[in-house]
Amino acid sequence: MESMYGKLALYTGTANPGLAQEVAQALKVDLSPADVFKFPNDNIFIRLQTSARSRDVFVIQPTCPPVNTNIMQLLIFIDTLKRDSAGRITAVMPYYGYGRTDKKDQPRVPITARLVADLITVAGADRVLMMDLHAGQIQGFFKIPVDDITTQHLLGQHMRQWDLSRASVVAADLGGAKRARNFAEVLGVPLALIEKRRSQSGASPSKARALNLIGEIEGRDAIIYDDEIDTAGTVTEAAAFLRSAGARSIRIVASHPILSDPATERLRNTPIEEIVVTNTVPVPERKLLPNMTILSVGPLLGEVIRRIHLGLSVGEMFNE
Amino acid sequence: MESMYGKLALYTGTANPGLAQEVAQALKVDLSPADVFKFPNDNIFIRLQTSARSRDVFVIQPTCPPVNTNIMQLLIFIDTLKRDSAGRITAVMPYYGYGRTDKKDQPRVPITARLVADLITVAGADRVLMMDLHAGQIQGFFKIPVDDITTQHLLGQHMRQWDLSRASVVAADLGGAKRARNFAEVLGVPLALIEKRRSQSGASPSKARALNLIGEIEGRDAIIYDDEIDTAGTVTEAAAFLRSAGARSIRIVASHPILSDPATERLRNTPIEEIVVTNTVPVPERKLLPNMTILSVGPLLGEVIRRIHLGLSVGEMFNE
Amino acid sequence: MESMYGKLALYTGTANPGLAQEVAQALKVDLSPADVFKFPNDNIFIRLQTSARSRDVFVIQPTCPPVNTNIMQLLIFIDTLKRDSAGRITAVMPYYGYGRTDKKDQPRVPITARLVADLITVAGADRVLMMDLHAGQIQGFFKIPVDDITTQHLLGQHMRQWDLSRASVVAADLGGAKRARNFAEVLGVPLALIEKRRSQSGASPSKARALNLIGEIEGRDAIIYDDEIDTAGTVTEAAAFLRSAGARSIRIVASHPILSDPATERLRNTPIEEIVVTNTVPVPERKLLPNMTILSVGPLLGEVIRRIHLGLSVGEMFNE
Amino acid sequence: MESMYGKLALYTGTANPGLAQEVAQALKVDLSPADVFKFPNDNIFIRLQTSARSRDVFVIQPTCPPVNTNIMQLLIFIDTLKRDSAGRITAVMPYYGYGRTDKKDQPRVPITARLVADLITVAGADRVLMMDLHAGQIQGFFKIPVDDITTQHLLGQHMRQWDLSRASVVAADLGGAKRARNFAEVLGVPLALIEKRRSQSGASPSKARALNLIGEIEGRDAIIYDDEIDTAGTVTEAAAFLRSAGARSIRIVASHPILSDPATERLRNTPIEEIVVTNTVPVPERKLLPNMTILSVGPLLGEVIRRIHLGLSVGEMFNE
Amino acid sequence: MESMYGKLALYTGTANPGLAQEVAQALKVDLSPADVFKFPNDNIFIRLQTSARSRDVFVIQPTCPPVNTNIMQLLIFIDTLKRDSAGRITAVMPYYGYGRTDKKDQPRVPITARLVADLITVAGADRVLMMDLHAGQIQGFFKIPVDDITTQHLLGQHMRQWDLSRASVVAADLGGAKRARNFAEVLGVPLALIEKRRSQSGASPSKARALNLIGEIEGRDAIIYDDEIDTAGTVTEAAAFLRSAGARSIRIVASHPILSDPATERLRNTPIEEIVVTNTVPVPERKLLPNMTILSVGPLLGEVIRRIHLGLSVGEMFNE
Amino acid sequence: MESMYGKLALYTGTANPGLAQEVAQALKVDLSPADVFKFPNDNIFIRLQTSARSRDVFVIQPTCPPVNTNIMQLLIFIDTLKRDSAGRITAVMPYYGYGRTDKKDQPRVPITARLVADLITVAGADRVLMMDLHAGQIQGFFKIPVDDITTQHLLGQHMRQWDLSRASVVAADLGGAKRARNFAEVLGVPLALIEKRRSQSGASPSKARALNLIGEIEGRDAIIYDDEIDTAGTVTEAAAFLRSAGARSIRIVASHPILSDPATERLRNTPIEEIVVTNTVPVPERKLLPNMTILSVGPLLGEVIRRIHLGLSVGEMFNE
Repeated sequence: MESMYGKLALYTGTANPGLAQEVAQALKVDLSPADVFKFPNDNIFIRLQTSARSRDVFVIQPTCPPVNTNIMQLLIFIDTLKRDSAGRITAVMPYYGYGRTDKKDQPRVPITARLVADLITVAGADRVLMMDLHAGQIQGFFKIPVDDITTQHLLGQHMRQWDLSRASVVAADLGGAKRARNFAEVLGVPLALIEKRRSQSGASPSKARALNLIGEIEGRDAIIYDDEIDTAGTVTEAAAFLRSAGARSIRIVASHPILSDPATERLRNTPIEEIVVTNTVPVPERKLLPNMTILSVGPLLGEVIRRIHLGLSVGEMFNE
Repeated sequence: MESMYGKLALYTGTANPGLAQEVAQALKVDLSPADVFKFPNDNIFIRLQTSARSRDVFVIQPTCPPVNTNIMQLLIFIDTLKRDSAGRITAVMPYYGYGRTDKKDQPRVPITARLVADLITVAGADRVLMMDLHAGQIQGFFKIPVDDITTQHLLGQHMRQWDLSRASVVAADLGGAKRARNFAEVLGVPLALIEKRRSQSGASPSKARALNLIGEIEGRDAIIYDDEIDTAGTVTEAAAFLRSAGARSIRIVASHPILSDPATERLRNTPIEEIVVTNTVPVPERKLLPNMTILSVGPLLGEVIRRIHLGLSVGEMFNE
Repeated sequence: MESMYGKLALYTGTANPGLAQEVAQALKVDLSPADVFKFPNDNIFIRLQTSARSRDVFVIQPTCPPVNTNIMQLLIFIDTLKRDSAGRITAVMPYYGYGRTDKKDQPRVPITARLVADLITVAGADRVLMMDLHAGQIQGFFKIPVDDITTQHLLGQHMRQWDLSRASVVAADLGGAKRARNFAEVLGVPLALIEKRRSQSGASPSKARALNLIGEIEGRDAIIYDDEIDTAGTVTEAAAFLRSAGARSIRIVASHPILSDPATERLRNTPIEEIVVTNTVPVPERKLLPNMTILSVGPLLGEVIRRIHLGLSVGEMFNE
Repeated sequence: MESMYGKLALYTGTANPGLAQEVAQALKVDLSPADVFKFPNDNIFIRLQTSARSRDVFVIQPTCPPVNTNIMQLLIFIDTLKRDSAGRITAVMPYYGYGRTDKKDQPRVPITARLVADLITVAGADRVLMMDLHAGQIQGFFKIPVDDITTQHLLGQHMRQWDLSRASVVAADLGGAKRARNFAEVLGVPLALIEKRRSQSGASPSKARALNLIGEIEGRDAIIYDDEIDTAGTVTEAAAFLRSAGARSIRIVASHPILSDPATERLRNTPIEEIVVTNTVPVPERKLLPNMTILSVGPLLGEVIRRIHLGLSVGEMFNE
Repeated sequence: MESMYGKLALYTGTANPGLAQEVAQALKVDLSPADVFKFPNDNIFIRLQTSARSRDVFVIQPTCPPVNTNIMQLLIFIDTLKRDSAGRITAVMPYYGYGRTDKKDQPRVPITARLVADLITVAGADRVLMMDLHAGQIQGFFKIPVDDITTQHLLGQHMRQWDLSRASVVAADLGGAKRARNFAEVLGVPLALIEKRRSQSGASPSKARALNLIGEIEGRDAIIYDDEIDTAGTVTEAAAFLRSAGARSIRIVASHPILSDPATERLRNTPIEEIVVTNTVPVPERKLLPNMTILSVGPLLGEVIRRIHLGLSVGEMFNE
Repeated sequence: MESMYGKLALYTGTANPGLAQEVAQALKVDLSPADVFKFPNDNIFIRLQTSARSRDVFVIQPTCPPVNTNIMQLLIFIDTLKRDSAGRITAVMPYYGYGRTDKKDQPRVPITARLVADLITVAGADRVLMMDLHAGQIQGFFKIPVDDITTQHLLGQHMRQWDLSRASVVAADLGGAKRARNFAEVLGVPLALIEKRRSQSGASPSKARALNLIGEIEGRDAIIYDDEIDTAGTVTEAAAFLRSAGARSIRIVASHPILSDPATERLRNTPIEEIVVTNTVPVPERKLLPNMTILSVGPLLGEVIRRIHLGLSVGEMFNE
């Protein structure tokens, strides 16, 4: 494929080579070869095996854990491509690390999600492609163009194989209320919310939090929806709470399976009918669970990259 | 007052001179004189009457309607101060116009809240002081330091004069769920939410929206809380809905009384016990209502400016 | 048309849609559709109806009154296009508002013409296309490339239908001396100037100004030439003065018919043979006068845009 | 002297050390010592002999011929000071080279006056101090604050020692009309202008130019005023022309005595009563003429620097 | 201590808290408290316990392994300080990670040392303090001021306790020739060099390298000098080679004890009289060797910070 | 030739028009015509004779002496091209002036090599093409892509016509050790080095320097290799020293024949078999010597430009 930005070239960092491979297959191109490794002193080094000069380059690197290494690797990759005179560089980050540090909800803390946007820009990226950002405002942290692709259609398609007549989408956290509402609308089912509140009598304020259900769940099939599963504390707590509130079944649906410890243990120990995630970040074998479904975003990402490369509308893919 | 940034100088644009006057009184300084006017060709012109050289300047200008004029006036003010060699320039924007255009929730639209941040920065501001931003992430739209001051303590203090034993805070919109939760926590009362959902059978999708109550309101004193009252469509619709759902009384609490037409008419025609706002933006006499209480943020802003000027902690004011 | 910057796409703001339509006709393309409107809270919003991805975009928006709204609309338009991944964005501003605030001729004032250049650049424009800038130096306020197109050939062609054997070009103001000389050279006629001088005995210095004629006008056909007619104070004063100095006839020629109040009244009340302007800014019906001729710059702008798009020389159009 | 920007430190490049010495005397400080020299390979090198860390530094360097060397020297000086952690750096350029290349009056030429502004800024200057810029708009070429000091009061004071009752200020060129008008106003005398026009029959268009007098000069004492005397072609041609038009006497007044060859020869061969200039640029002995008066701007510059350093108004010096 | 940049505040990241403590003691101040930790998802978070508003802040964080985490932590620290309105931020990096990736000695590789300079700058640092940079040119990678402090005087002082009459400094690598020459000059002893050359007959070009001694070492006390000891491959190979070439004793002197695996094992297995390093980076207990001397740079760094804070010359400390 | 960056256009400044001509011939294109001259006031002016709009422009201008004029000319050229809407601008600098001022090896000095990189970038260059940089790190002084082309293959090919069986490459200075080693490897011959050391007993420290030979030279054919010959002091001193140390013959090989006075005299007075240089900078006739060989880099540069223009790998030319 060749466009006004040069021939397409697809590179991958080490964060999710499996996904990169799927994207390459969807695009019917080969990944461009590059050596990406660490020296004994922990320094990352990158060497492209073929020239990226005047190419329309896409580097696939979700910044999942090890977050800091993956970010630095992406930045060094961009520097390498820029200095090798790439025609256009798109950072493809299906998962955007530090996305939850997006505001100062207390004084004297960073806004790392903005900082990372500046790092990517100063390194030399021309544009960014992301999926299911934690907050839509993160697009505004970037001055360069961003495409933020939703997986709700992909996840919705999977969910619709079940009988949803008694299903409800539940936001396990008030911050995710609007996101859950959108998914509820995709599925055409009602919404409920769980509110965590600092219990007034609690001695240890940060721990003692009471859960309140806002809405109805009794006798319904609960679909807990969030953008990511991190330590799974919130969702497993929510699952138990919903079960006790009379939910008939529990499903957890999320785009990004971060699964920080002790997520796997928590999920294994909580009765959940199904855990549905995507492969924006890789799930190592030891974290796979029998009730876990992993949907591939490879074909979706491939099609988006094809459209960006050829200058075709991306919004049209979602009838927007 | 003099600090390492020079002597304090306080200027005001034409957006809210009354508030600027209150801030000056709180700080026990005079507003620095400046001519701010429009030529017949609609061009804004500014001329400082005394030199701002090496001063620690604060310009007070909420960007409420007329939004575009107020923004341009602020930008030109900053340019004037910068070219007159001000020592440090703080844009004091108690209300941040375009704050709700903070993300692309559909393709091919702007993120104006980020654009305005860039405009203010390129004009030459060194820092920004704002109140109750529509979204905390807007702080991250700025690279220069931002102080975002909450009025929840001020509003809470006023509310606590009433019996709150049967009160509930209600978010009239899911996007404001977290903000309402915080205010509920300040008041120590429960939370309820109203969900607007596109009605599936509706012919005209953007109009036909059904309201759902998530949580309990029957027999309770509803406190509808939002960051601003714009056309008052959402809050008056919510008030009527809550009334029909059995609320015992309705209060509306919001920081910024934008009151775009037909807000006043709507509020006048809806039975509401009290409407509580602040004076971050001015309310013209014709928009005043008998049940409207306007709390002054002047002393609060004055104290924050004093602390910024002298290099004292602002977070400490709120025990943070 | 397609070039190395992508396919041509032409958008218009609301400042001068009639001119945009003429440009589109000259280029034989359709204007790309976009929703451009204000919410009740005075916030401008823009939504492109089709994707601008990888297009070579020209947005037509002279920043005539309402200046501040038109500037903000242009900036938001640029942000929208940039975030929609337009290939190249040219801001087409046939009239450049704030062009007369181009220097500090007194202390403590802004240089708004530079500020606006920075705003347009930070919003994301790649280049600018303007006509008859108030001062040539404004090109230097931009770091991005600027094409400044003169209308003197267009105006000259119109004037040459008259007998110019006894004509003189008159600059109504010393600041326009050089511009008037150039037009005199285009027409091949002599030049005269009017000097305004603070009258030494005057109590009110800003008002009491005496006019001096520098050069000859008696018995000649005076062509008062300026870049714009704002309130028409200067030109109508000049017209009366020239008449009293023995001018045989008076014509006023200017590119930009701003016509701020009370321009129309003044022009109506002053005996002038002809007022010749262009349509860089729209003249509302109520400001039309029987002796006013409006020349269209549409075909000229269209040809310039075609050349910029295709990478052809623009200077060649003027034998430069 | 010490201010919020640190202690004052005054440096000089090699362009005008005599003036720098006078400024130092006016400020009652010593010039800070620095080695400024060229290696045999034409490379400029600078070494400060004492630390500039946390100082409020002013570097005096008009960019008169050798222009390119003087500009590069200034840039390298700024880099040296910046990297030595100077507190604030003011580039003091009593003459701004390339000031006349301030617009594109033909296609495919540079705007070097803007380019130089960018060079000074990127080198690390925090502010600029200049005198009698060729065009006021050059201030707008800078984003950093500029003080542009007029010498018209200084020159006027000198002229007022003569009987000005029959004097007229003459602009030798239409581009200088406004500047000459201002000086005429300072002196309280009338204005005349000389227009150069391409003679229509001329074979060689760039040479054959006819002069027209606009205004009266017969029997009057002509004061030809311009910002600089370069090759003196324009002013000596004007002097001869005015003489032939009946002027009683001729004086030439200008701020900057550039005196490029063959200026001295031309001035020597033209009968002129007096040539009045300042020492913003140095006049080598061989270019001195018996009828040349050189006024020192040293005390004026010194006072301006003192005010900038201490944060006092500069405009007040001129009752502005 | 208070200066024109505000009161001094000293923070430390987690890279070398021991050194930070020594610096604090040298400066007789307490480290400012801050929470610096990782969430389970590998995200670094920072929360200052007291306000840094208007403080002259120094953050101590060498970017030794784990390099990427330490860099990201430093960047997030700077963002936190900047957004908390610190007066001035100095990044104190006694060791600069990625310093050896400072040029493209083959195509299609990064210049990470420049990239990191940009990251630190975009995060918001005002200046940088470093020690014994791998290449002096790295100072030029920064646009903000850099102080690069040599430890050669500190190391030389230690070495002079021995009899140096038969000592020679040896550069183990040609890239370090100039650095070793400088140290030889500090000690007043001769210089020798080891050249590594690709052996022509070697099958595996990157491995088979022959060592050549350039200069004399027989019967002399060899002092192998380099800026850092990484895996110790080069220095232990050099030590063995020098021993076989007749060196009487071997010492290794280096500023930065990175000691990547298998450095400790290699050093333990090579007969070396003494290994002299500094504590710019921490040496964990398990890497300590009986023949290793660690000199503290704490007092030196403390004095440099004091001088930067107070605006005193740093060069003077070294009689420069 | 036409590529995605537009049609190729080749311009030359006045620094080395002969080389530019050779490059044009190699590329089989004509140089694009431009007027490049100085006004009497030393101001450089440039006027392109044909439009550079949407062209892929290469400007050839080594910044050899007169360095400052050549740099300023290049900057003004770039500004001219940028403002004429060139599609892409590559500054082709076969010699990079100020390259040796690349670090602060003493306090209070500039890093002019970085400064010049910033000047070129701010002027508007998109990329840079250079040859044999004094230090590889200078690539890192640029944020825009740099191609640094080695002439070692060209020089090596010339040298291999001689019998190299007893040849040794000698670095006349420790700073050039690594560069000399690389050339020794290209030729497959041993390396020796000359160390200059401040003589300890010397009264005048900067002058009295003793030379030490590190390595073997007796009976060998010495090839003194450096990146440039400036005043030839170092190389002629080295030549005499090597002769006295028993070298059988002496050749000097360098890329850039700067030949500042008194280089020619020194070289003429020193017995040297051959002086081999390239034409990256022009050698005026009066500096030619009978034993001087000048190799043309024209074909090499032409091929590199062709590859950059067409988006082909440059590294491949050197089997990298």
